[in-house]
Amino acid sequence: MKACALAGGVGGAKLSAGLQDALSPGDLSVVVNTADDFDPWGLRVCPDLDTVMYTLAGVANPETGWGLAGESFAFLEAVSGYGGDTWFKLGDRDLATHVLRTQKLRAGHTLTGVTAELSQALGIPGRILPMCNEKVSTLLKTPAGLLEFQEYFVRRRQRDEVIGVDLRGIEDARPTGAVLEALSGADVIVFCPSNPVVSLGPVLSVPGMREALAAAPAPKVAVSPIVGGRALKGPADRMLSSLGHEVSSAGVAALYEGILDGMVIDRTDEGQRGDIEALGMAVLATDAVMHDPPDRGRLAREVLEFGAGLGA
Amino acid sequence: MKACALAGGVGGAKLSAGLQDALSPGDLSVVVNTADDFDPWGLRVCPDLDTVMYTLAGVANPETGWGLAGESFAFLEAVSGYGGDTWFKLGDRDLATHVLRTQKLRAGHTLTGVTAELSQALGIPGRILPMCNEKVSTLLKTPAGLLEFQEYFVRRRQRDEVIGVDLRGIEDARPTGAVLEALSGADVIVFCPSNPVVSLGPVLSVPGMREALAAAPAPKVAVSPIVGGRALKGPADRMLSSLGHEVSSAGVAALYEGILDGMVIDRTDEGQRGDIEALGMAVLATDAVMHDPPDRGRLAREVLEFGAGLGA
Repeated sequence: MKACALAGGVGGAKLSAGLQDALSPGDLSVVVNTADDFDPWGLRVCPDLDTVMYTLAGVANPETGWGLAGESFAFLEAVSGYGGDTWFKLGDRDLATHVLRTQKLRAGHTLTGVTAELSQALGIPGRILPMCNEKVSTLLKTPAGLLEFQEYFVRRRQRDEVIGVDLRGIEDARPTGAVLEALSGADVIVFCPSNPVVSLGPVLSVPGMREALAAAPAPKVAVSPIVGGRALKGPADRMLSSLGHEVSSAGVAALYEGILDGMVIDRTDEGQRGDIEALGMAVLATDAVMHDPPDRGRLAREVLEFGAGLGA
Repeated sequence: MKACALAGGVGGAKLSAGLQDALSPGDLSVVVNTADDFDPWGLRVCPDLDTVMYTLAGVANPETGWGLAGESFAFLEAVSGYGGDTWFKLGDRDLATHVLRTQKLRAGHTLTGVTAELSQALGIPGRILPMCNEKVSTLLKTPAGLLEFQEYFVRRRQRDEVIGVDLRGIEDARPTGAVLEALSGADVIVFCPSNPVVSLGPVLSVPGMREALAAAPAPKVAVSPIVGGRALKGPADRMLSSLGHEVSSAGVAALYEGILDGMVIDRTDEGQRGDIEALGMAVLATDAVMHDPPDRGRLAREVLEFGAGLGA
């Protein structure tokens, strides 16, 4: 069975790791949000791509969910000594990823090509696919003004109320050939439990992406990132609320209406089954919280089975 | 007293440190070779500028003469993990210099401006001046073919016979305003004991540099990098020989004929006094080998006194 996952950062990386465990080597493709990429110190940093890559390679920092295990920060200390900004915690080993990527991008490689090279070098059997090769930047409208995503997310620790989202450059972006191929060749398409606004939102906003999803023959299922009215990680709950959406699995399902065939929710949210079914989606209520690596594989297998069943 | 030194890497950095000790804060300018700059991993690395900068800041690695004391190499290990080239030993802290410099150069700053910012942040009171802002690259003709300088120097450990030197881009280079000001405003101009072919050679080859030296009112003295027929460090002796020059203090003096007023040689080479004087230069024979930091200050003071005396 071939699966194509759509993912943002930590939550997307966890379920992707479960899917990688559940599938035969090479049968997983992960389409990743790149709208929070940015260029600290002139280096192209792709936080979601790297979180997925490090997690699938088994080298991610298990404490933080991002960055590398056993990382050191001598570079950052030296930058600080020069009086430079150091709010983005770029580790010494992590830096190799960004330096090599920046070098290859400047030499004319695509982000898709560079990502394939790096992830193959790390021994990842499947494919990690940037949603597009063009540069897209998520800008958040807040009472404090327009903030770049990493400024909001890392520097200001998500404390600002998000009252609007602007995806700069999205109109010139297109799903890559590799993304189109992964979608059309999949047996199941899985929306990971990532932020529906700023993680999967940009992926779905790439012109042509919704059409490609509609044309793909595979059943499409999502795993809710909201459990019991709260986000499992990050600011998705507050963001949904301040943008006028319902903060619930049903609220997330409503954002994916017309795209999905099924929704995987936590047992806690069993009471929302009727609301979600009313949107034309089948519902699987299970233990949707991934506490540890075995949880990831178990949830991934349930999601794949649920999805495959919807295609029958 | 204001001094302007011309320097390459380790030998130049040592005497510059001595000059910094001997002079009042801010009275030293060092014009540095940039023809062995190169771009590993797309980062602008300036080995001679950095050796001088780290040495004057007191943070250089005393074992190697280049790089930083207490350096770590996690970045390089990670690059190696990606299958990248790692023959150039770029440390994690050192990397901050190259990343910040590359970022600023790409943003349109000059190498002179960037170097001033970095060296001020490191607390250096004087001025470290790239010989020019344009990119110049030393290419060495060898029996193995044309080699980039760092390829010859670091990767192939100077094992190739140098039969020619090509300074690519030199015709478009010009001494910067800061260099011209440092030369014209100096009370003494000191040629450091650097390789006369590939360190001071490029500096003197910048179109307009010899004219600026000739116009500068200060006496000009050099410290010989050859003692007892051997280079104190590096391949200068073999390079002089394979290029048809005499491997001696007198041989070095001959390369600087018409520019210098005086030559500082080691007592070992006292016998060459007559040959050097015949080139129209005064000679100071002293202990010209710098074994430790006190040696640097002592030699610097002798050089300054010798030079100042020639101007009287």
